[in-house]
This record gives sequence, structure tokens and C-alpha cells, in this order.
Amino acid sequence: MFDGPLETLVRQLAALPGLGSRSAKRIALHLLSAKGTKLDALMRALTEAAREIVTCNTCGNLDSSDPCRVCQDKNRDKSILCVVGGIADLWAVERTNSFKGQYHVLGGVLSALDGVGPDQLTIDQLMTRLRTGGIREVILALSATVDGQTTAHYLMDHMQCMNLHITRLAHGVPVGG
Amino acid sequence: MFDGPLETLVRQLAALPGLGSRSAKRIALHLLSAKGTKLDALMRALTEAAREIVTCNTCGNLDSSDPCRVCQDKNRDKSILCVVGGIADLWAVERTNSFKGQYHVLGGVLSALDGVGPDQLTIDQLMTRLRTGGIREVILALSATVDGQTTAHYLMDHMQCMNLHITRLAHGVPVGG
Repeated sequence: MFDGPLETLVRQLAALPGLGSRSAKRIALHLLSAKGTKLDALMRALTEAAREIVTCNTCGNLDSSDPCRVCQDKNRDKSILCVVGGIADLWAVERTNSFKGQYHVLGGVLSALDGVGPDQLTIDQLMTRLRTGGIREVILALSATVDGQTTAHYLMDHMQCMNLHITRLAHGVPVGG
Repeated sequence: MFDGPLETLVRQLAALPGLGSRSAKRIALHLLSAKGTKLDALMRALTEAAREIVTCNTCGNLDSSDPCRVCQDKNRDKSILCVVGGIADLWAVERTNSFKGQYHVLGGVLSALDGVGPDQLTIDQLMTRLRTGGIREVILALSATVDGQTTAHYLMDHMQCMNLHITRLAHGVPVGG
């Protein structure tokens, strides 16, 4: 039954995170049944995103400008740096609306199993930022997994002699909670 | 935080069936983190699908040719017609690999609540097909919902005087099962 452009589209959609072949078929039907409106609008949005969205060379965020709006914002405290694993983590912290410092996106966490070493992450750029900028405090907002905590330890080792105030996110149930 | 092309893309993705704002953000990040490969491949697939996939004027299926491959297939029995609500239903029947007749896609089912009347469906085309073609048997493969069964009754009323063998899908638990 399936062959040609329809199969290609379903395969491409099914490869997206969180989608399987059933949901991909549903989305393909949804788009093709309203080619002029829905499919066109999605394609315009994808084209524009591909053209305009760039990675911020300072923090690693994705935005339509480089430096990104977070890095450009004059009202944010440039002396506090929040180190996150991925851009989704940056967005999650931003959603809380309670952090008013700068960010640094590592692009992942160290993982011996997945073969992710310090060179694959933006650790060098982070160290350069810490050495040159007027950063006083670093918040390590890395995940509570083994890999996330290994990365936090690795970073703390490298920042020891830099005279920084280093904090980590609280996690778990408080004693007496 | 969100504004501009990234927000537009997330909004477009979140409007797809089965996706919400969280999964849309995840997909947007996934695509933008590999612009050259994944985003390009998806856009190529969408462009090609938009250009090549058409609705079959005979049965209402979506395919890269009109008539579609099911209608063109010489090995299929042209005297048996399976009436389905949507293209997803046609695909579901095809997946069983047990039906070797032709199809007719109604484009929905009659629904008083949603304001879908006979004119919104391809019932006229179905009647024309039944009158002109050499169809002996009609299988009404409509859903077991109230709307689906209403549609089945409506169609049976209109096909009564056509000397056709009309069957419906079995559903429910068999007696003694």
C-alpha cells in the first residue's frame, strides 16, 4: 500500500521524538487533507525557522539573534551564571520566571556509556567565560542522573581555583518532609 | 522568552493532532539542533508530498497518482466495494491484507451535532458509482459509534432498490463468547 512520497513523509514524521508510525500517519493525513492551509503554514514556519534561528555563540541558546535575547538583556545580572545541559533545561528555568542571571548550555552531559567526553560539550567555552567575565556565582542546574552529577563534579573540580561561589540545585525529599 | 520564528514553529507543531506544547517544543529543538540533516529531510518530504499527493477522484484515497493504485490494480475485484469513513480506515482495512475489492471514502460520517450532512460527504459520488459500475456487493465498514451507524442506515436506505448485497462489519462480543 505505502510507497513513494506519502511513505517518505510518514517515515520522516515517525522519526521525530515522541511520534510513532500511527501518530505519523495521523499527522500526514491531517496535513494532506488541508494542503493549502495547514501544510503551507507548517512549511512556512519551518522555512523561516531554518533561515532565522541561530545558536547563540555566548551561551548556546537557540534564538533569532546572536547573541540571544537572554544574553542581550541589560536587566539581567551578568555576575550569576546558570549552567544547564540542554536548551530545554534553559527554557524550563526561564519558565519559572525566578532566575535573572545568564545561562551556559553545555550541549549534553558527560556520559561514558554514550561516549560523550568533555570535548563534545562546551566546557572549554564555559571556562573561558568564567576566566574573562565578571562572574561571581555559578549555579549547576544539571539533572539528578548519574551522568548529570558526574558532569557537575567534573565542572566543580575545574572551577575550584577560580574563587567562585558554586551552588547546585536542591533535589530529593527534605529531611522531616 | 518565546517570540518570533521559534514561537511560530512551536505553535504550528502544537496544532498537529496528538501533539501538545511540550512535545512541540521537543520536536522543534530536535529539528533545529540538526538543521542541515533532519530539518532539511522533513522539509523535502513535506514539499514533495504537497506537490505529488492528490486525492483519487474515484475513491477519495490519497496517493501520488489519480486514479490511486488501489483503483488501478487489475488484480482487485471491481464488483465488491468497501465504504469507509476516512482514509485512515481505508489504510486500516488494507493493513489486514484480506480485502481485495475496491474502496469508497466518504470523507467523514453524518453528524447532526457537528453539522455534517449528506452534502458534505461523497454520498452522491457513491450513488453514481453504484448506478454505473458493475458493483454487486457493498461492505459498510463504518465505525460503531452512533454517527457511524446512522450513516450506515442512511446509506442502506438509499441502496435498497439497487439490487445489491449489503453487509456490515461485525462488532461486539459474540453470543456464548
